[in-house]
Amino acid sequence: MTTIDYRDGVVTMIDQTRLPTDEVLLEIRDVPTLVAAIARLSVRGAPAIGVAGAFGVVLAARVHHPTVDRAEFEAAIDSIRHARPTAVNLARMVDRVASIARRDPAAAEAEAHQIRAEELAASVSMGDLGADLVIELVNKPRADVMTICNTGGLAAVERGTALAVVQTLHERSQLGEALPLETRPLLQGARLTAWELKKMGAPFRLLVDSAGPFLLSRGAADVVLIGADRIAANGDTANKIGSFSLALAARHAGVPFIVVAPESTVDMATASGDDIEIEDRGSAEVASVLGYPTAPSGTDAVNPAFDVTPVELITALVTNRRVVRFDQNQSLSS
Amino acid sequence: MTTIDYRDGVVTMIDQTRLPTDEVLLEIRDVPTLVAAIARLSVRGAPAIGVAGAFGVVLAARVHHPTVDRAEFEAAIDSIRHARPTAVNLARMVDRVASIARRDPAAAEAEAHQIRAEELAASVSMGDLGADLVIELVNKPRADVMTICNTGGLAAVERGTALAVVQTLHERSQLGEALPLETRPLLQGARLTAWELKKMGAPFRLLVDSAGPFLLSRGAADVVLIGADRIAANGDTANKIGSFSLALAARHAGVPFIVVAPESTVDMATASGDDIEIEDRGSAEVASVLGYPTAPSGTDAVNPAFDVTPVELITALVTNRRVVRFDQNQSLSS
Repeated sequence: MTTIDYRDGVVTMIDQTRLPTDEVLLEIRDVPTLVAAIARLSVRGAPAIGVAGAFGVVLAARVHHPTVDRAEFEAAIDSIRHARPTAVNLARMVDRVASIARRDPAAAEAEAHQIRAEELAASVSMGDLGADLVIELVNKPRADVMTICNTGGLAAVERGTALAVVQTLHERSQLGEALPLETRPLLQGARLTAWELKKMGAPFRLLVDSAGPFLLSRGAADVVLIGADRIAANGDTANKIGSFSLALAARHAGVPFIVVAPESTVDMATASGDDIEIEDRGSAEVASVLGYPTAPSGTDAVNPAFDVTPVELITALVTNRRVVRFDQNQSLSS
Repeated sequence: MTTIDYRDGVVTMIDQTRLPTDEVLLEIRDVPTLVAAIARLSVRGAPAIGVAGAFGVVLAARVHHPTVDRAEFEAAIDSIRHARPTAVNLARMVDRVASIARRDPAAAEAEAHQIRAEELAASVSMGDLGADLVIELVNKPRADVMTICNTGGLAAVERGTALAVVQTLHERSQLGEALPLETRPLLQGARLTAWELKKMGAPFRLLVDSAGPFLLSRGAADVVLIGADRIAANGDTANKIGSFSLALAARHAGVPFIVVAPESTVDMATASGDDIEIEDRGSAEVASVLGYPTAPSGTDAVNPAFDVTPVELITALVTNRRVVRFDQNQSLSS
């Protein structure tokens, strides 16, 4: 499965807003269409958005010569950079390809493909390191894995982060079953992760979010794998709401709890989880499901988009370059 | 708000399947219609079902004289008893009124109203004992209360169990705000508890289930109040899936975790939570919301209807008769 690619002036991407009902491949030929696709979450996940932005620069350079039509080119670049204001990775990747394009427009496409290849290599690496660690920790030939949100190929180029580990285990015949949480309010687990697991032919059963902690206490999974939005210098990890609850239950059950995320997620400028601000996404997502109201009209909600799991509850971090064993008192700076 | 009542040959009940969108009062004049209403969950919650059954016997006795039309009367009674096979309370209340009706048909109505009055008195008592305990434990003039599922008047005659405590706190001006969890898969928190809180004018904000544990860690609530499906002799408590997760998080946050349930929920014949079988309600509820599919077709799920919270994580049990402080090593048999 390929989330995003580029060939001969056409960016192709799976429209994630249509999943799991419809599998639609978008073909995008111009920058405004690409910016709109990023903005309405047809593509999501930091690595995938970064690659989309990189290919966007290639589209821009085909229409506006970076030095001849300089104003038009820079305006197009700017619109891509701001398609999602908080996506740091998007701006970084756009800038990287744009600086190449300004020197040599013909080299932009190769640079964008290079970024895509790097993201894929990072996923392969996380999958290998993570699968090795899981099998070492669970001390069984096949591991049952609980996970949350979507951390698969749809969030990256292919394979992803935590779900890359699940995929690698599956390819090595070391996966018992995957137990994805549906992940309210936006149901990325039910809509996207279940779809990816089905695609890869991996055995899985879906859970409502609150069933995860109890099923851990009953021995239903050997390990919990999650992704990360941001990892503080001390190892505290911000990730999708529900991660903290799984971490508490994993500790209670004596089950390893592993974070899988690229090195770029580690933010040494943030000392600890206390310094991470929690975004509240408003009431509408909570008081409805897929747009259908579930609560009385006018119902107010608290809707933290993510939570912070303290490093004391995290067994290890797996990145594309290393394994940090917090349970053995290793630290991110060592 | 009155969930269920009877007058002049008519049982009135709120149709809970229509909430929160439509507020429909059913008027039921015969046994088959009542049995159908119980079976399709127009009325739910052990006390409410018991009262519905009691009034059902009154309806039966109006049409079929219990001793003259004995076969018809007993067949009608039997159909009510079996409207929900696992509802122990239903059979018990039906039998209680039927035995009166067989001796004196004219006395059946008074007995059914007596049952209704007893249920209401139990809710008032749980509300008072629970509110006193909450204010003692939180040591603040107003408590912020997190809760799960629907434990309010809709599950009883009026007021309910855990939500009766919230209502009592609100009436005493001792409620900060209520934080109900939406309670997937069937959304009783979003659909029913939010509706009841709105009706009583209590300040509240709705949460997705996995936000509860994290918000406890951030000090959002002073206490967690839950109901119970069954309480084992050692105090282990079976309740709606998600209760265990809240208990773990309450312990981690140092927040009291209180079970509120009538004495009839205590099952001294069950030694501990290990002896409670966990019912799995199948995949359809998990792979859809309000009937709308959320996951790829054919998605399998694990769907435990409830979980078991070990007594070590429970601060106290409040019944209609007593407070048992597990945190002070009190036990159910003392």
